[in-house]
Amino acid sequence: MDKAKIPYSLNSKKVADATREWLHKRGVQISEIAELVMLLQQKYYPDLTMEECIHNVEQVLTKREVQNAVLTGIQLDILAEKELLIPELQEMISNDEGLYGVDEILAFSIVNVYGSIGFTNYGYVDKLKPGVLERLNDKSLGPVHTFLDDIVGAIAASASSRIAHRKQAEREIEKGEESTDQAR
Amino acid sequence: MDKAKIPYSLNSKKVADATREWLHKRGVQISEIAELVMLLQQKYYPDLTMEECIHNVEQVLTKREVQNAVLTGIQLDILAEKELLIPELQEMISNDEGLYGVDEILAFSIVNVYGSIGFTNYGYVDKLKPGVLERLNDKSLGPVHTFLDDIVGAIAASASSRIAHRKQAEREIEKGEESTDQAR
Amino acid sequence: MDKAKIPYSLNSKKVADATREWLHKRGVQISEIAELVMLLQQKYYPDLTMEECIHNVEQVLTKREVQNAVLTGIQLDILAEKELLIPELQEMISNDEGLYGVDEILAFSIVNVYGSIGFTNYGYVDKLKPGVLERLNDKSLGPVHTFLDDIVGAIAASASSRIAHRKQAEREIEKGEESTDQAR
Amino acid sequence: MDKAKIPYSLNSKKVADATREWLHKRGVQISEIAELVMLLQQKYYPDLTMEECIHNVEQVLTKREVQNAVLTGIQLDILAEKELLIPELQEMISNDEGLYGVDEILAFSIVNVYGSIGFTNYGYVDKLKPGVLERLNDKSLGPVHTFLDDIVGAIAASASSRIAHRKQAEREIEKGEESTDQAR
Repeated sequence: MDKAKIPYSLNSKKVADATREWLHKRGVQISEIAELVMLLQQKYYPDLTMEECIHNVEQVLTKREVQNAVLTGIQLDILAEKELLIPELQEMISNDEGLYGVDEILAFSIVNVYGSIGFTNYGYVDKLKPGVLERLNDKSLGPVHTFLDDIVGAIAASASSRIAHRKQAEREIEKGEESTDQAR
Repeated sequence: MDKAKIPYSLNSKKVADATREWLHKRGVQISEIAELVMLLQQKYYPDLTMEECIHNVEQVLTKREVQNAVLTGIQLDILAEKELLIPELQEMISNDEGLYGVDEILAFSIVNVYGSIGFTNYGYVDKLKPGVLERLNDKSLGPVHTFLDDIVGAIAASASSRIAHRKQAEREIEKGEESTDQAR
Repeated sequence: MDKAKIPYSLNSKKVADATREWLHKRGVQISEIAELVMLLQQKYYPDLTMEECIHNVEQVLTKREVQNAVLTGIQLDILAEKELLIPELQEMISNDEGLYGVDEILAFSIVNVYGSIGFTNYGYVDKLKPGVLERLNDKSLGPVHTFLDDIVGAIAASASSRIAHRKQAEREIEKGEESTDQAR
Repeated sequence: MDKAKIPYSLNSKKVADATREWLHKRGVQISEIAELVMLLQQKYYPDLTMEECIHNVEQVLTKREVQNAVLTGIQLDILAEKELLIPELQEMISNDEGLYGVDEILAFSIVNVYGSIGFTNYGYVDKLKPGVLERLNDKSLGPVHTFLDDIVGAIAASASSRIAHRKQAEREIEKGEESTDQAR
């Protein structure tokens, strides 16, 4: 059967797998994102474990909007590395031009999945560039990570928001209150 | 025990219940929002039932961001009705001033919960004002619904997005593919 | 002198010129976007001329955020046409997958420049696909315009918002009130 | 002539004046917001003066979207102080509930006016709460500033973005390049 004849149909599992694979190929470990989450949240939840942080990062990565933003951003980084972009865009992306804000826009579509409470955490790690973000942001190292550093910060901020929602649900269940906001 | 001494702690169930109660008090039935969803989605899913539309509206209303936006918007409508606002704000909200965009901003925080794919549906119903939106938007009827009409359109758009995500998951399960985006 | 030695510095004029050039190369005339603006606004401003609509579209195109979104979106369309994308992204963009929302996200960064009042107009034209949008959205014609159709709708919505702000300023100047919101 | 007979018409100057007046009444000086701008931007522009920071804050305050968000946010703070809100909303706003994100949503409509490049600066000051933000965020002092602290941070972030756009324009004019992005 001719390949062209198979009608297109979205395969969500393939998109999800590609997202994790490409994060890995671009040098980002789930545990490194989890460390950013720990940095952001341990002050509020002293008992928070790395295992929980990793679990929450993984849950964020199951979201379709997150996968779309990750793949699109990494794609633009790769093409900038290969110098395959329109010259004016090539220049802005390969130099991480501060006035080019599309990287922040994609990052925000990730943060938004768990609501506006994640904006602050995103801005904070994006400014301070702790851990993996320092490496991704180091312009001397060769690869272009104009999109990826913002995306990784956004995933960490999103996982932090998810933890905040979950911890509230746990508190309410302990108090015998019915939880109403489970499906995250 | 003195009431002031009970430390504050968010009670999510009370917020969820208040959201549904206030929609009802302001004259909006879940079934009317579900009719907007049907209008938006029956073209894509001819087998869609009103029961499914109602279920999806109800699921949207379990989301914390949605509840916060609904309560805040209805609150501003009520205070405008009672003429309790700062005069300049009073004028803009009670006259549904087109250049006052905070109603759209709250609406967007609702649509955003299911991702950017809902923006189009929101804009479409907000422009055409079908069904319940026509009544809410009728300035001759007394109550101020500057926020509520946008909020109701946004809930319908969000429920439509939720249906699109779910129908895709169902298709993939039928094809024997693993579903990866369950938690909506 | 070696080209690599010239330090990077953003050249805004080149980015602005490339934006207009690429819209043209991808088959979109400024006058076609202006026709969408006329369609959206003539009901509110019966005296609105095509000349004014064209002028407002051109003003929208001077905005840096708009240029960044236009170039990035057209770039992704072109690369999808050339089949140069990561396979999973290639499939979603070349098939204009409804659950891939990054095109809407870029569109929203354009609409946002003139505030939230443009969201409704964007959604409306994006749903109805009048004029140039019908052609861009026709999947039988060969080129991939997954991003461009949303971008063109967003530029038209933005120009409509700009007109609304400007007409208000004119009304207030006629009434002898001081205009305070000039710098758009 | 009866007051009720005067048809409503937006008076932009009154809205602009009310915005500045209410910031002042709620204890925020323009110079305090300018100090946040200086803190955020002096690293990038060592010659930046307080006069320039003040000027940029004032320009941000001429924007309609900013005025609408400021007035709406301050209004909700005041009503929470007077305990005039729906009980569930009253509790969340008067306790600055972390999972109530409408304050961040209004803040973002302010930051957005100068594009996505301001998100990072907003998150950073919102996390660190320097200067005036520390005072506004001090829950022991009586007044409710759940919205105002986010709004003030957002105005500072917006003014910072405005400076970044302007400094780029100045650089290009010095180099004899035509500036294309003037109207901010």
